Amino acid sequence: MQERVLSIQGIKRLPYYLKFLKELKVNGVAYVPASAIADSLNIYEVQVRKDLAAISRQPGKPRVGFTVNALIEDIEHFLGYDNPNSAVLVGAGHLGQALMNYSELENHGLNIAAVFDVSPDLIGKSIRGVQVYALEELVNICRERNIEVGIITTPVGCAQEVCDKLVEGGVKAIWNFAHIYLHVPSRILVQNEDMAVSYALLSNHLANPMQEILTEE
Amino acid sequence: MQERVLSIQGIKRLPYYLKFLKELKVNGVAYVPASAIADSLNIYEVQVRKDLAAISRQPGKPRVGFTVNALIEDIEHFLGYDNPNSAVLVGAGHLGQALMNYSELENHGLNIAAVFDVSPDLIGKSIRGVQVYALEELVNICRERNIEVGIITTPVGCAQEVCDKLVEGGVKAIWNFAHIYLHVPSRILVQNEDMAVSYALLSNHLANPMQEILTEE
Repeated sequence: MQERVLSIQGIKRLPYYLKFLKELKVNGVAYVPASAIADSLNIYEVQVRKDLAAISRQPGKPRVGFTVNALIEDIEHFLGYDNPNSAVLVGAGHLGQALMNYSELENHGLNIAAVFDVSPDLIGKSIRGVQVYALEELVNICRERNIEVGIITTPVGCAQEVCDKLVEGGVKAIWNFAHIYLHVPSRILVQNEDMAVSYALLSNHLANPMQEILTEE
Repeated sequence: MQERVLSIQGIKRLPYYLKFLKELKVNGVAYVPASAIADSLNIYEVQVRKDLAAISRQPGKPRVGFTVNALIEDIEHFLGYDNPNSAVLVGAGHLGQALMNYSELENHGLNIAAVFDVSPDLIGKSIRGVQVYALEELVNICRERNIEVGIITTPVGCAQEVCDKLVEGGVKAIWNFAHIYLHVPSRILVQNEDMAVSYALLSNHLANPMQEILTEE
């Protein structure tokens, strides 16, 4: 029985493997050696082998490598892309609209079912085919449609209040883009996507160039 | 001599400590115990002590705790916020404009000196006081102004070409928001901020709720 354990850095590499594998599939390539996957990302082959061993039971075959189709399925299953999550997005400003326009998210198993905003100019309209509702309807719509993920792209001042409504509406996870540490019941998963926090990593690395914290696990 | 080593998760907590400490400072609070910092983020006190020991030589004093001002300085120094980086942003779509509007980045030591786009509607105008230039001027402006960081918020199709120009212009680091694995010389630091990749972490966690990969190091 193999151990299915992968680091955060490893999980972050999977969507890149997937992108490369799907390009191969489109071009009719059936098998791929680990070395070719490694070259496409400019990383070591041993890293690719280790990552793939953690998420796939498929052994690479000598000389031909991995079956492209099976590897695509294994990665999509591990990442939950074969079981799409229904989501709502709250806050249709630039960042919210950037996420709505980002078609990769749909390919990656995120289905945004409704958008919420406070602006009368937006309520009742639709963004990329998804209707914009008033914030007052958030709890009910989350409940009615069994929404699993709430995406917060509001200003920081109302983020906790929006978070509380999402929790009341029954979401399992919150993807938070506001610069605030949200308080939630322990059953709720919060993933913070704060740009200032992300920039902290880059800034720290520029200030301390001898560290190799970003590229390795 | 203490070891100044901190995990990626630890570095990501620092901006939240900083935010809390600055609120205390505004309210005239001079000292703070580690337990109060821990409570504000809903994490363990031992975690806060460990993080702070890695970045500050200031010992917490019994009963009163840490000096707020000194701790703010230590965190800002560790993250390089006291030594702002000059940056350019390429691609003034929704995501690019969201970053331009995000005032926290400036507070966190990122100074966006110029914006680049291909749209004739944008070139020559300014976004939040920063001028938009044609892509053809990218290399020269990066060189003339000693730009250190290039931010890529373009569509995926031109991201590698933009990256090559940034490298030619002499940047040290690239903050990449496009869904592509960029190829750069090894001296260049690339931090990928791909939303599909970030979502992969959340999606994996929803698909495998027994794992605790996201919250702990």
